[in-house]
Amino acid sequence: MSFNKKILVELIGAFFLVAAIVGSGIMGELLVANNKGVILLGNMVATGSILFVLIKVFAPISGAHFNPIVSFVFYLKNEIKLSKFIFYSTAQIIGGLFAILFTHYIFGVNIFQISNNIRGEERMMVSEILSTFGLISIILILEKNKSTKIAEAVSLYIMAGYWFTSSTSFANPAVTISRIFTDSFSGIHPSSFIYFLFGQIVGGVVAFYFVKYLYND
Amino acid sequence: MSFNKKILVELIGAFFLVAAIVGSGIMGELLVANNKGVILLGNMVATGSILFVLIKVFAPISGAHFNPIVSFVFYLKNEIKLSKFIFYSTAQIIGGLFAILFTHYIFGVNIFQISNNIRGEERMMVSEILSTFGLISIILILEKNKSTKIAEAVSLYIMAGYWFTSSTSFANPAVTISRIFTDSFSGIHPSSFIYFLFGQIVGGVVAFYFVKYLYND
Amino acid sequence: MSFNKKILVELIGAFFLVAAIVGSGIMGELLVANNKGVILLGNMVATGSILFVLIKVFAPISGAHFNPIVSFVFYLKNEIKLSKFIFYSTAQIIGGLFAILFTHYIFGVNIFQISNNIRGEERMMVSEILSTFGLISIILILEKNKSTKIAEAVSLYIMAGYWFTSSTSFANPAVTISRIFTDSFSGIHPSSFIYFLFGQIVGGVVAFYFVKYLYND
Amino acid sequence: MSFNKKILVELIGAFFLVAAIVGSGIMGELLVANNKGVILLGNMVATGSILFVLIKVFAPISGAHFNPIVSFVFYLKNEIKLSKFIFYSTAQIIGGLFAILFTHYIFGVNIFQISNNIRGEERMMVSEILSTFGLISIILILEKNKSTKIAEAVSLYIMAGYWFTSSTSFANPAVTISRIFTDSFSGIHPSSFIYFLFGQIVGGVVAFYFVKYLYND
Repeated sequence: MSFNKKILVELIGAFFLVAAIVGSGIMGELLVANNKGVILLGNMVATGSILFVLIKVFAPISGAHFNPIVSFVFYLKNEIKLSKFIFYSTAQIIGGLFAILFTHYIFGVNIFQISNNIRGEERMMVSEILSTFGLISIILILEKNKSTKIAEAVSLYIMAGYWFTSSTSFANPAVTISRIFTDSFSGIHPSSFIYFLFGQIVGGVVAFYFVKYLYND
Repeated sequence: MSFNKKILVELIGAFFLVAAIVGSGIMGELLVANNKGVILLGNMVATGSILFVLIKVFAPISGAHFNPIVSFVFYLKNEIKLSKFIFYSTAQIIGGLFAILFTHYIFGVNIFQISNNIRGEERMMVSEILSTFGLISIILILEKNKSTKIAEAVSLYIMAGYWFTSSTSFANPAVTISRIFTDSFSGIHPSSFIYFLFGQIVGGVVAFYFVKYLYND
Repeated sequence: MSFNKKILVELIGAFFLVAAIVGSGIMGELLVANNKGVILLGNMVATGSILFVLIKVFAPISGAHFNPIVSFVFYLKNEIKLSKFIFYSTAQIIGGLFAILFTHYIFGVNIFQISNNIRGEERMMVSEILSTFGLISIILILEKNKSTKIAEAVSLYIMAGYWFTSSTSFANPAVTISRIFTDSFSGIHPSSFIYFLFGQIVGGVVAFYFVKYLYND
Repeated sequence: MSFNKKILVELIGAFFLVAAIVGSGIMGELLVANNKGVILLGNMVATGSILFVLIKVFAPISGAHFNPIVSFVFYLKNEIKLSKFIFYSTAQIIGGLFAILFTHYIFGVNIFQISNNIRGEERMMVSEILSTFGLISIILILEKNKSTKIAEAVSLYIMAGYWFTSSTSFANPAVTISRIFTDSFSGIHPSSFIYFLFGQIVGGVVAFYFVKYLYND
């Protein structure tokens, strides 16, 4: 598979991932505006389901990162070059942003929006450190063990994270950037973004060294 | 397995698929008429669950299409003949229509109904293009990769689609035609039908060429 | 494994199955008495989950029937003797009844109850014919195909059946008898019992001949 | 893998398990305080999902106990030494307690709390006997059968247990101790603790002898 096709697949994967997250949030608000528990259930199932599918379908093509932190950790592991990390991350962000516009269009809401959802600061950062640490550790350890259950594990971990972390486990900078541009259930106000991003980078790097330590690499 | 049995199995599969979609919608309305979020959760789980089962059970017999777009794409791929596409599609539509009558009977509502649920036009068409593009791409790529997880992927993709696309991912003309004939949660007004159908055809054909491009076929 | 142990395992399996069905219904009523949609979601997940577990755990020991119709069909197939069918069915019913008493005890409600839940007559019978036909067909076809996914398929099929059939897919006479003796969410009034039982027998026998026809046995 | 790393992994696993249980309960209360059915759905999915992930990821390293009863039963089976049981149990309890503090921090509630949730006495004890008997039997029988589905079975069994047992299937003393220290949805008042603990020990030991009997060990 050519490099261009891998980039394309990363863009399409991030598109579907962000579409699932944002679309299911909007659908939930349309159906049960006053019941955020039911919205989070729908949001969680949609996200977990699409993650399993995207990883199963695209892993043999691009590796199915869809997440700049995942690409960055593979760069730290010397499995991909810096240029690939940059191309992948860019494609992931573009795919996510395009998903926002598309999802707003099909739901008939304003195409361009900025979120008013202020999610918090230090506590959210710590929550994202934990959730990203978990996500990256899972991927790296299951790779070490040559597990065939990475898609299942990532999907279920993020489903759990929607409910057990106060930040609802964004754990993905491409997704986080995209969610700035929707003023719906899953949006995030620009002022919260930097705390989420910083937490994600720290969590990913800590996971990288944790797994290195565990396996004496 | 004889050709007649394959046709029979396609009819039975489409019957159970449409029964699950329409029946769970009616059940939801009976239980929580005012909470459409909970209805959509039940609708989604019932549909996703039956899809997994039907594909696992019937794939070795008929290929488990249950969807004229799926059959059409296999015709485009020269894997089935035009006559088989026509027989399969006809059986799928008959199975779906029979499911409507049966489901209305067991729930004790009027057997013959026409939906009043106007779902929209261009935006719904675009939503169906996306959802059918996704469905067909998943099937074709997983086939290419000789994956054993097609049932899981199709099931979870449609579950996600119920929540993240504004059209709730019908992605199947036999199902769409059937749903015209129920004035319950999952129904669709005849005026919306043509937009859904057109979107499904476009999405399927685009997916066919996309996967062709991806694998240089 | 000795015959006595197989009987014991069928009793324990039916115990856990009925406990899951009835207990989750009572739990749902305690938590959200006025939201039957949410109760059915909990009821469905508990039942589907325990079915997967029981089949995976006990299949290598007893075959994991937990259902007189399943045992009866294996008797029709000459895979078990009449005496085994009788012992299995008796153990399944005793296990189910004991689960009712136990579940009532741990939830602190009256131990002995009779359901007031009149579920209906002919329409329920037809609904049970369909749901039992589906269940038995799935088991027999997957066995033919030497599938390793019987536990997944049975679990997900029953989960779907809770929502898409008007009778909520009892599809099991041992479970149906037990549910007479609980006046909670999952109970069934004695007057409805005979319609459910008859439907289950018809559905099972039709499935037996359908699969025989399909494979020219 | 060194002994210290195994201990560390047990601590981290128990941390994520308790964080998922307690965090999802707090999230549920924030979103839908008045709908305990929806909270239990979220609580259940988060717990079941994280259990699957933790077992898949950590089983090859530490055995993925995360539960003093599980460790104790492996000690009874002479598969681990008394010292390992003690170290594992201690790590599990410390991991759980740390998860409470961490989860309280990220959700912005008081770090130190004591539960006011009086859950009951004898009936809860009996409920925990059943649920722990089931959990340990499942693990021991699937191990005997060299099943690859232990993670799936444990996850789904606990999900069912949340709904079908009146005690919601704690089935784990490390988790039970931790939950004393949160006055949120998943908390347990100290006065109920001893009944839960006693039930868990009895259930585990009975399961050990039950499986011994079943396989004539």
